[in-house]
Amino acid sequence: MTTRIVELRKGVLKKNDELAHELRSRFEDAGLLVLNLVSSPGTGKTAFLERTLRELRAAGARPAALVGDLETDNDARRLAASGAPVRQINTHGRCHLEAEMIGQHLEGWNLADFDTLFIENVGNLVCPSSYDLGEAVRVALLSVTEGEDKPLKYPTIFNSADIAVITKIDLAAACEFDLGLARKNLHEVRPGITILETSSKTGEGFDAWHSLLESLRAGHPSLHAAHT
Amino acid sequence: MTTRIVELRKGVLKKNDELAHELRSRFEDAGLLVLNLVSSPGTGKTAFLERTLRELRAAGARPAALVGDLETDNDARRLAASGAPVRQINTHGRCHLEAEMIGQHLEGWNLADFDTLFIENVGNLVCPSSYDLGEAVRVALLSVTEGEDKPLKYPTIFNSADIAVITKIDLAAACEFDLGLARKNLHEVRPGITILETSSKTGEGFDAWHSLLESLRAGHPSLHAAHT
Repeated sequence: MTTRIVELRKGVLKKNDELAHELRSRFEDAGLLVLNLVSSPGTGKTAFLERTLRELRAAGARPAALVGDLETDNDARRLAASGAPVRQINTHGRCHLEAEMIGQHLEGWNLADFDTLFIENVGNLVCPSSYDLGEAVRVALLSVTEGEDKPLKYPTIFNSADIAVITKIDLAAACEFDLGLARKNLHEVRPGITILETSSKTGEGFDAWHSLLESLRAGHPSLHAAHT
Repeated sequence: MTTRIVELRKGVLKKNDELAHELRSRFEDAGLLVLNLVSSPGTGKTAFLERTLRELRAAGARPAALVGDLETDNDARRLAASGAPVRQINTHGRCHLEAEMIGQHLEGWNLADFDTLFIENVGNLVCPSSYDLGEAVRVALLSVTEGEDKPLKYPTIFNSADIAVITKIDLAAACEFDLGLARKNLHEVRPGITILETSSKTGEGFDAWHSLLESLRAGHPSLHAAHT
């Protein structure tokens, strides 16, 4: 039975890869920068996106977001307050987003209306790593409250990421977080990875984040495709 | 393909349930209290177990632990410092523990040597919920840094738990954590669930935790089986 499941799983991943490939072409044709945000539950993906969308809108950019969750639409409602177009993807218990769900939830949107699309994945440090969503950039978030060892313990997700965002940096001292060790561990599983240190509460690190987004929009959009 | 996968998955879960049922009988025959600890990565399962094992040993109890991880054996090494017998289960990328892995890793142990066995699951708030490990009690941990909404967003894991342990309570003020709201959300997905508030750093809440373990050892050991 295990062999059959492995074979079927390979089939599912192959089909997902084909759909992701089509999505990536669509995104590139539309000149749309697409980022897939992955992390553990509670790392602060939604808070990070709330500030990002709000600041991008204030600066005249045209962001949109797709938000994956098992059950609720709390996150979509939080993000919609920014004024950006936001759609919830309810996975009904599924532990990750798939390319097919992305395609379905783009229907009726004109991609040319946006310059950046953020996809907030389901909170899970394991399963989302296997599913390409057609993104140009995969961003793995890690909060200072989770401990410096997470990249070593969940290597696949950090290894498949292009950017690591350390969140809740305002709590670093209270958590006795060793930033040097976290950076060392990130570089061990993903040599040369770009690392940002941020606080969605104080805004620390968001200037660097916006500069990075700007250079990604201006430059080669398929940072992620190059690695997969 | 989806239909075939759903059917195969049902088969895997059925086989897992049968193995878990056998394990539960073995544990009950040996008079061993078994707890399955589930949470998001970084909630502090290992720190919670470190203090638990150390304090149980100091009080003359005979605990043991199995620790699941994708890759490293860091956690087993941390827990072994307590002096308790500890074994690492390396899932090689699998996102949850299964009953078969538990059975394999008990080999060579005499269950009568222990009074309590803790199983630390892979850090994941989704997938472990479907896999019964033969435990008497499922404990879902939630740290104050993750936000009060997690029970609503990951209802299956909290709904299948018998006890909820709120960790890192020493950081509650820094995180502006609303304990009342967290309790309300936990009771919404799992009415009447026992909730403990703990800090593995300061030891807050551990007296209540040890009292609870004592009453579980003395009383009916299959709190969890009754719900599955």
